Order: sequence, then C-alpha cells, then structure tokens
Amino acid sequence: MARSTRETILAAAAELMHRKSYGAVGMKDIVAASGAPIGSLYHHFDSKVQIAREALTNAGAAYALLIPSIVDGYPDLGQAIDAVFGQAADDMQTTGFANMCPVGSVAAEVADTVEPLRETCAAVFDGWFGAGTGYFVGRGLSAEDAREVTVALVGALEGAFVLARTLRDTEPLLIAGRVLSSRYRGIALSALSPRVLPTAVGPAR
Amino acid sequence: MARSTRETILAAAAELMHRKSYGAVGMKDIVAASGAPIGSLYHHFDSKVQIAREALTNAGAAYALLIPSIVDGYPDLGQAIDAVFGQAADDMQTTGFANMCPVGSVAAEVADTVEPLRETCAAVFDGWFGAGTGYFVGRGLSAEDAREVTVALVGALEGAFVLARTLRDTEPLLIAGRVLSSRYRGIALSALSPRVLPTAVGPAR
Repeated sequence: MARSTRETILAAAAELMHRKSYGAVGMKDIVAASGAPIGSLYHHFDSKVQIAREALTNAGAAYALLIPSIVDGYPDLGQAIDAVFGQAADDMQTTGFANMCPVGSVAAEVADTVEPLRETCAAVFDGWFGAGTGYFVGRGLSAEDAREVTVALVGALEGAFVLARTLRDTEPLLIAGRVLSSRYRGIALSALSPRVLPTAVGPAR
Repeated sequence: MARSTRETILAAAAELMHRKSYGAVGMKDIVAASGAPIGSLYHHFDSKVQIAREALTNAGAAYALLIPSIVDGYPDLGQAIDAVFGQAADDMQTTGFANMCPVGSVAAEVADTVEPLRETCAAVFDGWFGAGTGYFVGRGLSAEDAREVTVALVGALEGAFVLARTLRDTEPLLIAGRVLSSRYRGIALSALSPRVLPTAVGPAR
C-alpha cells in the first residue's frame, strides 16, 4: 500500500505539472488531486521539489519510448521524422493543444531558479539523447549522425510544442517536420534487430 | 515623469521574468527591483498580468530586430542561419546560459493557465512570423519560403534555448544551426533595398 500511495502522489503531481507547470502547483493541490493526506506526502517525500523531481524522472522515462514507437515502423529516416511531427500535430489538435512535454515546460520555467529541478530536467534530456542515439545506431546510423538527428529532433519538437500550444495552431509542428525531414530523406533505417534493440535503448526503457 | 516611472516598472518586470519566468515574480519583487512604490504600480497598472503583458510585448518588439540584424550581413540563407545559431551559442556561453527568450519561457509556463498572457505571447509570436516573413520576402524569397524559414527558425531557436539552458551546453544550438542551415545553403538572399526593407518589417520595428 505504501508503494501505491507513493505512486498515486507522483501521478497526481505529474498531471498537475503537465497542466500548470511547476510554480503554480502547491502541496495542497497535490493533496486534493491525489486524495492522499498531507501527512502522507511528507511521509513519502521531503518537499515539493522532491516530488517534482521523481515525477519528471518518471515522465521522462515514459516519453523516451514515444519516438522509437513511431520510428519503428519506417524504413526511411525522413519519412520517420515526418511521421513523428505529424503524430504530434494530431495529438495536439485532438487534445485542444494540451502541453505535450512537462519536462520542457518545467525546464523553461525553473532553469535559473530551482537548481535541483534543472538538474533533473538535464538528466532527462541527457537520457533521451543517449537512448535516441543508441536507438538510431541500432537502426544503422553512425554514432555522429544518430546523435545529430536525436538532438535536432528533440529541440525542434520542444520549440514547436511551445509555439503550437501558445498559438493554438499546428503550423509550427508541420513546418518543423517538413524542414527537418528534408535533411534526412533517403537515409535508410535498417530493420529492427531484436538482438540489437534492447541493448541499444535498454537503459532508458 | 509619469512615463518614466511606467517604463522603469516595465523594465524591472521584464528583467525579473527573464530570470524567474512568471509565477515566481510577485508585485513585491517588482516594487523592490523598480524602486517604485506599490501605489505607483497600481496607479499605472491594473494587475501583475497587465504589467507582464506590456513587458512581454516590449520585449517581443525588441527581439524582432535581432534576427534581421544578424541576417542582414549575409548573401546566402544557409550561412545566415548558421550565423544566427552561432551568435546565440556565443551569447549563451558568455552569459553563463542565461535565458535568451522570456517570451518563450513565460509562454511554456502559462499557456494553459493565464489566458491573457497566452494571448500576449501568441501575438508576439505572430508578430515575429509576420515581420520575419516580410523581411525574407524583402531579401528575395517567395512568401511561402519566407514563412517556412521564419517559423522553422523561431521554433528551432526556442527549443534549443530550453535544452541549452537546462544542460548548460551549447550543443543543441550548434546542432540545430547545422541541421537547419543545410536545408537553405545555396539559396541567395538579395541585397537589402532601403525602399523595400522599412515597409516589409515596418510594423514590428
């Protein structure tokens, strides 16, 4: 039961940060959203910062699976990138332009003010870069190309998310996808090898 | 004097949001940073939201000049884009990875929670897209290409800013510049025409 309460608190905090970013979420909000009494929050966690760190780390691990889950289906890197941005645009439209990445929005908010959260967000981004690079190496790219496409893809998505959420318009996502995919069209991705894949992306999965 | 106090308040608020984003900035912080008494804040402005709206609008107008000021010097679109990201990377390194764009960080924080501020940030982004498109049309691009490069450039910069600030590393900016410039290398920019330029970017200047 202790484990379940802990997870309920983290899930509630993740959902609140997803909608309200970090500063606007209070311990009282987490109490109300999780149903856990305030004493239980302080039994499991030292502080709001600690709750946020664990919730963002969990969210980061879950998000690390999303891009590979889309790219898996494509034999061409340019097509795969188009599909990632197309899916993101569809998801934003369907959700009424919900925040697609609480790690990015919390990082933008606290990078100069809440150092432990900056460190957590940096670890999540580093984890994505490592996992994505490993994934694309597993699909046959050189290490350098794999890191380039991973870092460029995450950056272009984060920027387009902010613009699209703010403008309530998918145009920034569709343009980012068109521009980024044009660099990678014609670059073949090798078939997924069950032997290579778990090793390559293992740490983040 | 009334005008000067107003401007002092807005400049202090802009600087505070630059470092602390929006939620963590209180009216008391603006009082302390501006030196203006609290009564003066409420004489000039209805609320913190109104101060933030005007400060972000001013910041947006100032930032609209930055990209043209760099691109002006280049006859090739790809080279110009490389220069924009190179300058941004230098600026981040020099400032110890300061926030390069309070409009982006505030937008990421409040897009789902403070509707008037979302609207202000959307108007700033729209203004940048219009001014940038006008600028590149003035340098000889088609309207469609001009809008594409403008939206892609703003999105890639915003995303790379968040990653670079969080990671304390310029790699995301340098990779974004390399990837984006590769699409546009070899596309000539025509010489600046004094007659075309003020009309094209006039509204945002």
